[in-house]
Amino acid sequence: MNNTINKIVEELKKYSTFLITSHESGDGDSIGSQLALAFMLQKMQKEAIILNKDPVPEMYDFLPGVEKIQNETTRNLADFQVVLILDCGSLDRLGLTIPNQNLFINIDHHLDNDNFGYLNWVMPEMSSTAEMIYLLCKSISLPIDSAIGNNIFTGILTDTGSFRFSNTTSQCLHIAGELVEGGVKPSFIVNKVYERKNYAQLLLLGEALSDLKITEDGKIAYIYLKNEIFQKLEVDISDTEGFVNYPLSIASVKVVLFFKEISKNYFKISFRSKGQINVAAIAEMFNGGGHHNAAGAKVKGNLLPILDKITEVITKQQLY
Amino acid sequence: MNNTINKIVEELKKYSTFLITSHESGDGDSIGSQLALAFMLQKMQKEAIILNKDPVPEMYDFLPGVEKIQNETTRNLADFQVVLILDCGSLDRLGLTIPNQNLFINIDHHLDNDNFGYLNWVMPEMSSTAEMIYLLCKSISLPIDSAIGNNIFTGILTDTGSFRFSNTTSQCLHIAGELVEGGVKPSFIVNKVYERKNYAQLLLLGEALSDLKITEDGKIAYIYLKNEIFQKLEVDISDTEGFVNYPLSIASVKVVLFFKEISKNYFKISFRSKGQINVAAIAEMFNGGGHHNAAGAKVKGNLLPILDKITEVITKQQLY
Repeated sequence: MNNTINKIVEELKKYSTFLITSHESGDGDSIGSQLALAFMLQKMQKEAIILNKDPVPEMYDFLPGVEKIQNETTRNLADFQVVLILDCGSLDRLGLTIPNQNLFINIDHHLDNDNFGYLNWVMPEMSSTAEMIYLLCKSISLPIDSAIGNNIFTGILTDTGSFRFSNTTSQCLHIAGELVEGGVKPSFIVNKVYERKNYAQLLLLGEALSDLKITEDGKIAYIYLKNEIFQKLEVDISDTEGFVNYPLSIASVKVVLFFKEISKNYFKISFRSKGQINVAAIAEMFNGGGHHNAAGAKVKGNLLPILDKITEVITKQQLY
Repeated sequence: MNNTINKIVEELKKYSTFLITSHESGDGDSIGSQLALAFMLQKMQKEAIILNKDPVPEMYDFLPGVEKIQNETTRNLADFQVVLILDCGSLDRLGLTIPNQNLFINIDHHLDNDNFGYLNWVMPEMSSTAEMIYLLCKSISLPIDSAIGNNIFTGILTDTGSFRFSNTTSQCLHIAGELVEGGVKPSFIVNKVYERKNYAQLLLLGEALSDLKITEDGKIAYIYLKNEIFQKLEVDISDTEGFVNYPLSIASVKVVLFFKEISKNYFKISFRSKGQINVAAIAEMFNGGGHHNAAGAKVKGNLLPILDKITEVITKQQLY
């Protein structure tokens, strides 16, 4: 690790123009990491722009420097000497085409990262990419100001599920402690990220949970939100963020399926699992994908046959 | 602080028999703190028993040493030389009568603690009483083993709402980091505390939220669960733990009222607020009580007049 991080520090010092990017559908870690790194490069008197496929979700609109994130640019991307790709396991997850004559530096904590870069600093033992950006900041001996601190804290907070997931390490807690010492207010960030729901979103959560179904053995739970309810409450699929995790809090439940009817007989399905069950494999059967415990797919057809097929696969493969 | 903590250390060393207790309706901090302290006294070769008014809630049944907590005893309480009262603002919150010929040591982080002890170590700047027990453990130079570590971590975790509330300090994050270094697994504790719900509890949450009401100005939200729904789902009031916090995540909401119909026209009401609004004052009007942002009362009558009275008080007093 020290070797790679030192090489990255050298490149950051050596070159002068940087393009920062990350995976599509940005989250707290990808956005926080990119912004923290942009502020660091700014302190180093470098030119850096951030280009992302998707706009920043509203819950992250408070992050210092968020206005730096562009979704299109008139600049010639080939002009940037170095492309810094954060929190992204493979180039096809960028959702953008970046000319590859430049130096690609790959900074990521995902286990399945395919080492696409000229330099690859990939550390699955890190809670988040933000934690790695913190280490990078320390290696360059840059002071962590409020802008950098708030962005790093948000990355760690959101990728550890508020210090609840199994990636909550001693190191990330100590870093969080240091950031709070430096002035970061956890309750401020938590309020912005998690407590800006609207009335309709809570009604929608109520609809989802009051009609929650569970198999007889208690192991598979599923939520089905019809298109009508989205219409009725004037909400859309983005308002269901986090719903799929609720049934996982039931002790017996091992797999959660969340069907969102986008239009008549067309579903977006989110999969979640606990422990051994690999939902990415199930999602792939429907041309979807994801991680071991969290995946997704889009499927056409009637709900019941789709549901039957999925539960059959889970049961047949003796996935639990 | 150093003076008081040193005096407490002296007394723990000097005496040999200890009674540990805390407030009624134990929570993660009161239970974790008491157990950690009992293990510390055990290491010091002292005799200690824990006596609490109420049984330990199921969500804390995994805590190391939980079997030490008694709800009754044949022992003569006057025989214990020292009574250690943790996380408890006043003696009437114990729900127990303790003979007061013994030395009372009061260890607490509540602002409104009335200093009832012979020694009073009250530090509102601490995240939790568990954090104070950690400091005490360090002062006695006792090693923090797995039993002590898991209990302290649980106290900090639950009293900071998983490192989300405004009492999440740099120090408590560093302590959490040190405990994880020592072997505590946050995801294990989180699973035990927060992820052992049952199916009916999620259906009940669905019922509560799908029927959530909100005032026109968006500031007061209320949930009303009828007695029938408790019967239908075969759940009781203890299964509504945490529900009252959901509407607080709506940006506009300043006060939440949660009506649980215990029996025909008899309600348990929970109050929550954000910021300036003092719901303890509202609860007191109905012979209830509590804290500034969290309070409760039991009320007889019809729902609508009760609701009108409360909203009138909130509006009239220009509490927002």
